[in-house]
Amino acid sequence: MSFAQASAVSGGPGRWSAELPVGWDIFGVTNGGFLMAIATRAMEQETDGRELISATGSFMNPAGPGPVEIGVETLKQGRSLSTLRATITAEGRDLVLVTGVYGDPDRPRHDTDLVLGEPPKLPPPEQCVLAVPSEVAPLPPPFTGKVEVRGHPDDSKAILGDKTGTPLMRGWFRLLDDELLDAHGVVLASDALPPAIFNADLAVGWTPTIDLVVQVRNPRPRGWIACRFATRFVTDGMLEEDGELWDQAGNLVALSRQLALVPR
Amino acid sequence: MSFAQASAVSGGPGRWSAELPVGWDIFGVTNGGFLMAIATRAMEQETDGRELISATGSFMNPAGPGPVEIGVETLKQGRSLSTLRATITAEGRDLVLVTGVYGDPDRPRHDTDLVLGEPPKLPPPEQCVLAVPSEVAPLPPPFTGKVEVRGHPDDSKAILGDKTGTPLMRGWFRLLDDELLDAHGVVLASDALPPAIFNADLAVGWTPTIDLVVQVRNPRPRGWIACRFATRFVTDGMLEEDGELWDQAGNLVALSRQLALVPR
Repeated sequence: MSFAQASAVSGGPGRWSAELPVGWDIFGVTNGGFLMAIATRAMEQETDGRELISATGSFMNPAGPGPVEIGVETLKQGRSLSTLRATITAEGRDLVLVTGVYGDPDRPRHDTDLVLGEPPKLPPPEQCVLAVPSEVAPLPPPFTGKVEVRGHPDDSKAILGDKTGTPLMRGWFRLLDDELLDAHGVVLASDALPPAIFNADLAVGWTPTIDLVVQVRNPRPRGWIACRFATRFVTDGMLEEDGELWDQAGNLVALSRQLALVPR
Repeated sequence: MSFAQASAVSGGPGRWSAELPVGWDIFGVTNGGFLMAIATRAMEQETDGRELISATGSFMNPAGPGPVEIGVETLKQGRSLSTLRATITAEGRDLVLVTGVYGDPDRPRHDTDLVLGEPPKLPPPEQCVLAVPSEVAPLPPPFTGKVEVRGHPDDSKAILGDKTGTPLMRGWFRLLDDELLDAHGVVLASDALPPAIFNADLAVGWTPTIDLVVQVRNPRPRGWIACRFATRFVTDGMLEEDGELWDQAGNLVALSRQLALVPR
């Protein structure tokens, strides 16, 4: 089953249905980026061909596989930007609230680019560490079998206890069978690697996301995505994780930021 | 009129009223952080004493001074975290949708801190440049007269056309008469300096915020706030602005991230 099939929505407008499929989970809980992707997909259907620019998810309750409903409201339909919100519920429980901003692909844009950053330095994918689900340990989780994540060799041993001491997680991402990415796949990619904090001298464990915001700068990237996730501030029991996603040509695909609780 | 008075809400629960006061605007449009602060204040009233941890605002329509209504819904009230959303409307038009996550101040926290960053290097406030509203030019805007922003001398001449070439804006922030800050004042501070992009070789002009997320790591900072705002990626007509706010003791107060349209 492709990602497009796994995250498909039906019904609408206003109320959509989807099925959280088996296997896209961590510790039995469906991946947060995957959940958000279902919401951004449902909202997109109500935008008349507009493209995702920004998605913000506020996570309320975890859920495992099973049917969900997605309520969608259009809050603003402007000349070039639309704002929508979606709530995913399972058995009457709110899982996540997602706000999506969509843009007219033909909107006028300022054409000056400024890029003060560069893709992470990664060995080629075949020299990186392919994450595969463990049959005996809780990590790597089943989710890793649904996508192709190839981690930087330095950063990938954290879940085995071999930490670098630096809260950084770099790696390549693509969908299985090199399925073409869309904006929803970019949202998925922004939450697909293990938490960067696993490389710090803190417990490796459940790191609940409070919210996640993804700025999609290219909704149709091609090939492997080079990912860099880093945490700089663990204070008051909380941490941020900032992500940069780049395509193979060296162009920025997305920026992400999470707020999460420190694992116990 | 203090910030607490200017951003006060009345009524509730569920539906609150406020008045966008004269003077808290840029080009006649009420400051976005100020708008969000009204929403986070209204939501807080419905949390039974919980403190703001994270606020995300999606801006839909600009508004000038006048009456507004704030609709508030509690989406989740968990053991230690609550999620609420608020919509501010004026004359039936949605201005901003704000999601707020609030925490029980007595919740258990992981007590290990990790700080891989430091406050911006700023001359003392009295050696920085006090922003005051211009009586003849559109910039600095009236808003600067409602707070005390003292910009780094290197970064502050951008609005006069004397740009550093680096999209960075550093400065001190406090409320007038050193009014005590609360979490809502921290949200205000995260949007109180001129856009960092003004120091890049791009037009100085209206830089519409699409969304703004603020992680509040300390809801009761004391004294001056040292602020650092930077933009690294201007692509596809959009830019992010990342903010770090620090107290005078060198502790992190908040992280912010905006998505904005490039000024024309």
